[in-house]
Amino acid sequence: MSKNFKNPRIVVIGAGFGGLQAVRTLAKYPVETILIDRNNYHTFTPLLYQVAAAELEPEDIAFPIRSIIRRFHHTHFFMSKVEHVDFENRKVEINGHTVSYDYLILGIGSVTQYFNVPGAAEYTFSLKTIEQAITLRNQILSCFERAIDEQDLEHQRRLLTFVIVGGGATGVEFAGALAELIRGPLRKDFKQLDFRNVRIILLEAADSLIAGFPDRLSAYAQKRLQQMKVNVQMHSPVSEITKKNVRLKNGTVIPTETVIWTAGVYGHPLAQLWQLPTVRNGRVPVLPNLQLVDHPEIFVIGDLVHAEENGFPLPMLASVAVQQGVRAAQNIVRQIKGISSVPFRYRNLGTMVTIGCNSAVASLGKLNITGFSAWIVWLSLHLVKLIGFRNKLFVIINWAWDYFFYERAIRLILPAADSMNSVISTKADIPTRLSQSQIKIEE
Amino acid sequence: MSKNFKNPRIVVIGAGFGGLQAVRTLAKYPVETILIDRNNYHTFTPLLYQVAAAELEPEDIAFPIRSIIRRFHHTHFFMSKVEHVDFENRKVEINGHTVSYDYLILGIGSVTQYFNVPGAAEYTFSLKTIEQAITLRNQILSCFERAIDEQDLEHQRRLLTFVIVGGGATGVEFAGALAELIRGPLRKDFKQLDFRNVRIILLEAADSLIAGFPDRLSAYAQKRLQQMKVNVQMHSPVSEITKKNVRLKNGTVIPTETVIWTAGVYGHPLAQLWQLPTVRNGRVPVLPNLQLVDHPEIFVIGDLVHAEENGFPLPMLASVAVQQGVRAAQNIVRQIKGISSVPFRYRNLGTMVTIGCNSAVASLGKLNITGFSAWIVWLSLHLVKLIGFRNKLFVIINWAWDYFFYERAIRLILPAADSMNSVISTKADIPTRLSQSQIKIEE
Repeated sequence: MSKNFKNPRIVVIGAGFGGLQAVRTLAKYPVETILIDRNNYHTFTPLLYQVAAAELEPEDIAFPIRSIIRRFHHTHFFMSKVEHVDFENRKVEINGHTVSYDYLILGIGSVTQYFNVPGAAEYTFSLKTIEQAITLRNQILSCFERAIDEQDLEHQRRLLTFVIVGGGATGVEFAGALAELIRGPLRKDFKQLDFRNVRIILLEAADSLIAGFPDRLSAYAQKRLQQMKVNVQMHSPVSEITKKNVRLKNGTVIPTETVIWTAGVYGHPLAQLWQLPTVRNGRVPVLPNLQLVDHPEIFVIGDLVHAEENGFPLPMLASVAVQQGVRAAQNIVRQIKGISSVPFRYRNLGTMVTIGCNSAVASLGKLNITGFSAWIVWLSLHLVKLIGFRNKLFVIINWAWDYFFYERAIRLILPAADSMNSVISTKADIPTRLSQSQIKIEE
Repeated sequence: MSKNFKNPRIVVIGAGFGGLQAVRTLAKYPVETILIDRNNYHTFTPLLYQVAAAELEPEDIAFPIRSIIRRFHHTHFFMSKVEHVDFENRKVEINGHTVSYDYLILGIGSVTQYFNVPGAAEYTFSLKTIEQAITLRNQILSCFERAIDEQDLEHQRRLLTFVIVGGGATGVEFAGALAELIRGPLRKDFKQLDFRNVRIILLEAADSLIAGFPDRLSAYAQKRLQQMKVNVQMHSPVSEITKKNVRLKNGTVIPTETVIWTAGVYGHPLAQLWQLPTVRNGRVPVLPNLQLVDHPEIFVIGDLVHAEENGFPLPMLASVAVQQGVRAAQNIVRQIKGISSVPFRYRNLGTMVTIGCNSAVASLGKLNITGFSAWIVWLSLHLVKLIGFRNKLFVIINWAWDYFFYERAIRLILPAADSMNSVISTKADIPTRLSQSQIKIEE
């Protein structure tokens, strides 16, 4: 595609929270915007764990990108992985040809961080993409289907042991949702199974869950999970994962075939491949206005950017990405107009974690709440933030179903990974799981 | 599993329309029933084409088998492919061990029939399973995503040509749904694309669509499809399919990368593998009471059975399978009680085919209707027949969305076949696509 527009062209790579918000902001100005993503949908990642716990359908938390951008003028979308960026000549390679840009916004996100634990990359499940959430859901349901027809009691117990590594927000939320799936609908489905053999183990290396939250909230989360029969183990770093076991540093071996790794994330390795500077966790450092040091035409947002506030790096949260998307877009517009840019300041409206029905923790400025009220806040906020009326409607129905009937409708092992027809091989895909040797960790 | 029940044990293989109805019927009697299927859900196959046309979500037409059977006493379900049946010793092999039976009901259905057309098995899409429907939906949407970024006009046209082989009910319904998807939502999504390059071609070897329906109804279906810009070609048997072309017997070559094969079905090849007698279309002939000739303890139902009425074989329809499921179950109960069995008689309540919004044909005994009234009958009947209130609700919402907003919410290329994590390799799977050499066709 040749550059034949008079308006400055801004290429946005990644249709996550940050990229999408940047595109939305740019649509108000006389610029041409090109959005690129490997998928044709935006993923509402905060609810991925509910897809994995068979509470929501994948379609509920995905929204077609073209539905969003078709309201905007001068905005185009291309589904492609990004092969290569030529930073000198300002060109991005997509679908085998190049697109030139005047400004570039990088919002390619993060990947799972395995901290060089042997076997972790090979044998654990992640919760970063919809595909991974579906794969995990299928695994959990398959374990029950296999367990009910398993004569070997030891193997049955291994099939029914689910280990979550990492007691951050994702680990806690998934542990709660999994406990509710198992103790509710699956108990009704698998009546002949002895549920005393079912175990959910949450392993945390440090001494408290959801680090960063006030102690009272962490303690509440732990107590609630324990009431839900989740086996929470503190001070339990993992030393090795095999196909059939988790080994802890203290020597304990837990037989299991399902390990969910939520222990850490890492800036997308493409940044290193493109030889961008990276700091801790593979994130790219920028000027206070989110601009790359030697490239005033490049802005970095979301999980990929290492932005500090009061000496601390900002957390990898959707709310940070959204605000950075707006700021990066506005700074580009200011640069075009010849106005000096504005430094990014994160406006923290609060963070929250849900543990289960009627139960969450929320830290809203100086207000820290737990229990039902926090849960209602969590519920309302996530519904408001979901894109699209139809998605909101379907999520409400699914949640209500779960709440009132104590039932999950979506207990399908579908589609089966090994029976997917692989006629399509053109699907663009940014690698999301590189081997440890490909990732250089600077700490 | 050892046989340690006093009640006679009936094993039902296949949780399709027939198998499920048999299980339902058996639940009323003092027998033990074991249902086996390779999936943990029942598929509402009559609406598969709407999943492929991005109108319904896969979850809308699938229902967890355990939700259905948990109301029944003495009924168990195992998810497994069926490796082997030992007809002499009355044992079925599942998940690596055997289950003995007193009576067996075979409802393993049918597979796509390719009539030895070269390339058909390799390069065409089918509409027999949910996985296939998802794969086809992904292919159609991917073709548009690739076409909009394709500079080579010839390649773009090939990407935007969709060929449906077979003008039966599935071919006609899918052609209509695809036309509505393309002329509605996709036209809004891909504004820069020249839609004069988009073609839907329906190829029929004979001289009319939906054979078996009265001529007036076939003619109506053809006229409606043509009004919807579907290129309907009669007398057009296919001679070869390649990765990039369809070749007709008359020499015409149609460049395309998407061929949907709905030209025929064939009794599941497992029947031949098990050395059961088969007749035309790989179906298994039975006594009038659905009993296998040399095995009074085995009953065959659904697409697999060759049952005749007035000298004609019964069509492969859900309604036939449902009625056969009841009859087979009742005949087994009668046999247990020592009462003579009852021959199967199909009660034809009518057949119908939908072409698009406000438009269908229905043949209800002597009443033949077309248009809006037929569409309302079609709509109501399919809603009533769908299992589960939640599925009905979601289908109504999706249909209403489509009808009132002329929009499809589910335009996701998801999950991508090549990015599915293949950690699970234990998923049981009956082969659904054998090479032609493995299938002996007797005609």
